[in-house]
Amino acid sequence: MSSTFGTLFRTTTFGESHGRAVGAIVDGCPANLPLTEADIQPQLTRRRPGQSALSTPRNEIDQVTILSGTENGITLGTPIGLSVNNRDQRPGDYGDMATVPRPSHADYSYLMKYGVKASSGGGRSSARETIGRVAAGAIAEKWLKTRFGGVSIVAFVSSVNSIAAPEMDVERLSRELVDTNLVRCPDAETAQRMIALIEQARDAKDSLGGTVTCVCSGFPAGLGEPVFDKLEAKLAQAMLSIPAVKGFEIGSGFGGTLMRGSQHNDVFVQKDGRLGTTTNYSGGVQGGISNGEPVVFRIAIKPVATIGMAQETVTMEGSPVTLEAKGRHDPCVLPRAVPIVESMTALVLADAALRQEYRI
Amino acid sequence: MSSTFGTLFRTTTFGESHGRAVGAIVDGCPANLPLTEADIQPQLTRRRPGQSALSTPRNEIDQVTILSGTENGITLGTPIGLSVNNRDQRPGDYGDMATVPRPSHADYSYLMKYGVKASSGGGRSSARETIGRVAAGAIAEKWLKTRFGGVSIVAFVSSVNSIAAPEMDVERLSRELVDTNLVRCPDAETAQRMIALIEQARDAKDSLGGTVTCVCSGFPAGLGEPVFDKLEAKLAQAMLSIPAVKGFEIGSGFGGTLMRGSQHNDVFVQKDGRLGTTTNYSGGVQGGISNGEPVVFRIAIKPVATIGMAQETVTMEGSPVTLEAKGRHDPCVLPRAVPIVESMTALVLADAALRQEYRI
Amino acid sequence: MSSTFGTLFRTTTFGESHGRAVGAIVDGCPANLPLTEADIQPQLTRRRPGQSALSTPRNEIDQVTILSGTENGITLGTPIGLSVNNRDQRPGDYGDMATVPRPSHADYSYLMKYGVKASSGGGRSSARETIGRVAAGAIAEKWLKTRFGGVSIVAFVSSVNSIAAPEMDVERLSRELVDTNLVRCPDAETAQRMIALIEQARDAKDSLGGTVTCVCSGFPAGLGEPVFDKLEAKLAQAMLSIPAVKGFEIGSGFGGTLMRGSQHNDVFVQKDGRLGTTTNYSGGVQGGISNGEPVVFRIAIKPVATIGMAQETVTMEGSPVTLEAKGRHDPCVLPRAVPIVESMTALVLADAALRQEYRI
Amino acid sequence: MSSTFGTLFRTTTFGESHGRAVGAIVDGCPANLPLTEADIQPQLTRRRPGQSALSTPRNEIDQVTILSGTENGITLGTPIGLSVNNRDQRPGDYGDMATVPRPSHADYSYLMKYGVKASSGGGRSSARETIGRVAAGAIAEKWLKTRFGGVSIVAFVSSVNSIAAPEMDVERLSRELVDTNLVRCPDAETAQRMIALIEQARDAKDSLGGTVTCVCSGFPAGLGEPVFDKLEAKLAQAMLSIPAVKGFEIGSGFGGTLMRGSQHNDVFVQKDGRLGTTTNYSGGVQGGISNGEPVVFRIAIKPVATIGMAQETVTMEGSPVTLEAKGRHDPCVLPRAVPIVESMTALVLADAALRQEYRI
Repeated sequence: MSSTFGTLFRTTTFGESHGRAVGAIVDGCPANLPLTEADIQPQLTRRRPGQSALSTPRNEIDQVTILSGTENGITLGTPIGLSVNNRDQRPGDYGDMATVPRPSHADYSYLMKYGVKASSGGGRSSARETIGRVAAGAIAEKWLKTRFGGVSIVAFVSSVNSIAAPEMDVERLSRELVDTNLVRCPDAETAQRMIALIEQARDAKDSLGGTVTCVCSGFPAGLGEPVFDKLEAKLAQAMLSIPAVKGFEIGSGFGGTLMRGSQHNDVFVQKDGRLGTTTNYSGGVQGGISNGEPVVFRIAIKPVATIGMAQETVTMEGSPVTLEAKGRHDPCVLPRAVPIVESMTALVLADAALRQEYRI
Repeated sequence: MSSTFGTLFRTTTFGESHGRAVGAIVDGCPANLPLTEADIQPQLTRRRPGQSALSTPRNEIDQVTILSGTENGITLGTPIGLSVNNRDQRPGDYGDMATVPRPSHADYSYLMKYGVKASSGGGRSSARETIGRVAAGAIAEKWLKTRFGGVSIVAFVSSVNSIAAPEMDVERLSRELVDTNLVRCPDAETAQRMIALIEQARDAKDSLGGTVTCVCSGFPAGLGEPVFDKLEAKLAQAMLSIPAVKGFEIGSGFGGTLMRGSQHNDVFVQKDGRLGTTTNYSGGVQGGISNGEPVVFRIAIKPVATIGMAQETVTMEGSPVTLEAKGRHDPCVLPRAVPIVESMTALVLADAALRQEYRI
Repeated sequence: MSSTFGTLFRTTTFGESHGRAVGAIVDGCPANLPLTEADIQPQLTRRRPGQSALSTPRNEIDQVTILSGTENGITLGTPIGLSVNNRDQRPGDYGDMATVPRPSHADYSYLMKYGVKASSGGGRSSARETIGRVAAGAIAEKWLKTRFGGVSIVAFVSSVNSIAAPEMDVERLSRELVDTNLVRCPDAETAQRMIALIEQARDAKDSLGGTVTCVCSGFPAGLGEPVFDKLEAKLAQAMLSIPAVKGFEIGSGFGGTLMRGSQHNDVFVQKDGRLGTTTNYSGGVQGGISNGEPVVFRIAIKPVATIGMAQETVTMEGSPVTLEAKGRHDPCVLPRAVPIVESMTALVLADAALRQEYRI
Repeated sequence: MSSTFGTLFRTTTFGESHGRAVGAIVDGCPANLPLTEADIQPQLTRRRPGQSALSTPRNEIDQVTILSGTENGITLGTPIGLSVNNRDQRPGDYGDMATVPRPSHADYSYLMKYGVKASSGGGRSSARETIGRVAAGAIAEKWLKTRFGGVSIVAFVSSVNSIAAPEMDVERLSRELVDTNLVRCPDAETAQRMIALIEQARDAKDSLGGTVTCVCSGFPAGLGEPVFDKLEAKLAQAMLSIPAVKGFEIGSGFGGTLMRGSQHNDVFVQKDGRLGTTTNYSGGVQGGISNGEPVVFRIAIKPVATIGMAQETVTMEGSPVTLEAKGRHDPCVLPRAVPIVESMTALVLADAALRQEYRI
């Protein structure tokens, strides 16, 4: 049941990397939304590996098929079935995982949970599981754009290891700008330094972490729920549910703990016929509910656990063993994380928006 | 519906600060657990305001009553009703909120969501709502201790503004140690400096933020769910659902983005008949599932929005106005946040544990 | 968790008959609805025992208190806490149940489920649990009437044992009419015969069952969900969740199995600017969704298990024993079931209506 | 969201009759269960149309594919994706539905709900949607049989129109016996009369309804939840969610309303080391929880709405029109309903069993 997300806009994903297919059912998408595979494919394509020398060369095509829920390119209001075939179903390649838990992978904890020594290790912890989310997120985003003209959800790589992008002008952000370089950092000069560092880590058979920032603008005030389903709480859950994410902060975040209340409070002013704030340390939410300012948050992504160099570990029975990864691996997953972050954000916002529609 | 948390161990809270009562229904607590008010009161007492010169002098007693779900001090397996009366039901005191939104409070966003100009402003965003959570969390913790001998959940104040505690020895941590000083920082020397800073902020009619760290030890491997309900994802949701929390990080968190994979990977070794890791950058979870190491995370709490000094804002209609808070206010809520963090953690862990019980 | 009902209009009940209180939290009731205890009390009063010589003389007052969720008589959109104190908390009265399972009561199955020998037996299977539902249902009904002018939900006793009321003219139905006699059968002549039979059963220390019919009119077409949450499926769940209910049928029900499709099909015609049907064998729903015709269903209530005469049974350990109920008991619960049926219906319809509000 | 059923054993279905595929995701099936397509196919084959001269000759093959959740024929504990391709995707065949609502079909109510004039009418109200349920139910049943040796779920046709089977000896019931004739009535003589009546209705281009009885034996006491998720309440929901079902009764059902309490009460006796009852008017449940006796219930299925003869109706705009169904249609869906009833029952029981596993 942990594979379902959302209250009204509900996504249920399925699929391991070595089964027949991965995908999702989206239940609760309103009827009458124009929707075809062409609306979904672009974010899947941004997500897929093998896009550049920076990422793993497993060239999966990841073509999505809509199995149900639409007719003549229009949603029916019924569940939308989404499927992407797996090209490469060779559990054998990962044969060791059944007996040797890879450091900082889920092989051991999955075994403790399920009691199955699967050759695919922590099957659902694979990045491939995120395909269903990205497909669903693209639908959520399409609905949000249809429902609220002018909304925008843009994520970008804000740091790789210690190389951090300068503060961005939120107004200039766009996916086009983000995609002008391989590392998806909208600051061109920083991007070049990030790329150089990633190439160096790749050659050293090592991996790098960093941060992704996401900016959501154009959303109305009033979205989100008080108490347990605060908008920031659901965003935090959504982000920490992405593989390799270790932290989340909204608005001023951890940095805000160094400020005083008198500095940190966002002063209300009149803005184009609505109330707005002069600063946005709140990150667009107050009391769990959007206030009309951009929703801005940042996540921490660890250096991925799969590295090319040999590592010490023990077998499931406790005997020491040296593990050497085969093939080439992604030295830095941050560029590919960008569409995943955007997709999970769209799922949170679409659900919040639908939950807000039914006011008396 | 946003007032319910959990899948099997489910807590539903109710109550505004100015209604008759606040409380919760806990549904799904297993039967046969010894339980009386005496198990619940201590954490409520740690949470309540007016405990020291550091916190607000509104001396609420917060005595809990169990309304149902137990007989002769034993749980029946049926819903446990919990209620704490409000002593002080004077909406008039906050009369301005209906027309003047306080900076960085939820008055404006609640109005946008609900369309009600309540004299109590963002009623459910009040810290008083957390009483139901703390009562429920105490029950969850009692069950966890009964189910898994030797488990421990201890939170403490790890920084106030720029004053940070040194790295703690996790083995020494206990609530007794944490409670040896008013600020609930287990390092005595740091605590004194924190207290001095808080007193200074109080005198300046300002407020301070900081961080709270939580350490959960003694829990088995295998708790948590893959995908959307990863253990860290539910913890993140739980923490960001606490008023004033702006960030969450688990294990290495944001700091881990500065490491390389080869440094960050937690090497498996044999430990007392189970597998363990030499380091714990993962923070006790891998792939969303506990691995048997302590679950360690940290949250950021903003400087609270309610301050004594005058602030500029506008009325709901947009006219500039100066707002002056009446009475005295908590200059730093971090010490009182400690039992709230522990309670929400217990709710997450009890739910994860029950969801893991039903393996074939 | 089984104590929560609804997706958007969510009711969570608590309370055993011998604890401090029974009640509910209603989460998801829209804001801005005028609501005070006076809106809730009438149905509670119709539900309570001791209303007549026909029912048990335990004269419980059942006064409801709203604990939260309203201010100045207006709902805030936040959870509405509802509580009714138990006057009579004497588990001792039912002392035998811990060791002797009463025939057709839940004492034995509760013990098998929870493993607790509670002196109150199957505590949540008590009719007193329905107080929370009736209070919540009154709120749901108030909202429905505010949202859709002219809606009406009226239940009545359609048979007691073999005495059945003649076909009712749906247009004439009203609660006032239903309440013109003690047995709540709107046909006066039939009511007299029912009352005579109940008095006879009471004197024989026996009990009687029967059927309750419910008619919901004035609701728009389009309410309900396809597949698992069909309107009739949620009504069936709601009705079978009421203690002592053993059957549910909608529209033509079991009798419809004797018809042919050509007779049973409801022919569409034009009616006041919408489509309607000439007959209503469908009972107001088609494919799980309301079609604008009255929603009409009927439930079977067994003769209650608590009877005054001595009965054979065995102890929990299997030794034969004779059980004699103390005090006087309700020989026929059908009149009191009427407001419970109406309340559960209101909960289903309010939830369905809210789920339908968020169309694109 | 209405396409998900279950709390722990969760099934989400997708698919219209004229899309690419129908199917389901089963989330929450325990790990380590042996499972291949061969476990699922038999019930799908029993469900499919075109099995005999009695049913529609659209010879769909309905071959199921497991997309995920298993490895080497063993469940992983992760979501099981299930898909069955549609052979026949010709929305054109049903072209009229977009403008002419068929009597007692969902075309009109779907349009009122979704606002889409789909050529497939009430797409999810099609019997083809039940394929996903049957596939999921087969998995649930496999798990139940693995978890509880000797359990059995058998449904059969107990009446067609006014031809009713005599009381069955529950001990003799088996699917093999049920399948000895085309109409799935285990009494051979009654079956012949039913078949003759169905053939006559088919030739008259009309349709017939009837009842299906289901007997579940070998299940332990203690399954089910009190209050809203009573075992009988979830069964009622499950049954009323099946297309064309208009009624549900458990144990004595509607007939029990004619008995007195002293007759109806099931007397407890000692049985093979557990408590049992001498009669089973309760139908295996008391207070919503199984008592160890067979769970027995009966449902009413209306004569299907699709008939060959011409019918009067109006267009969506209200103009009178005569509707003539093309092709041949199922004159009586009861035989095919048998595996659907068994599947939904398995989903309810598997969920109840998992919810009961986690007692302290």
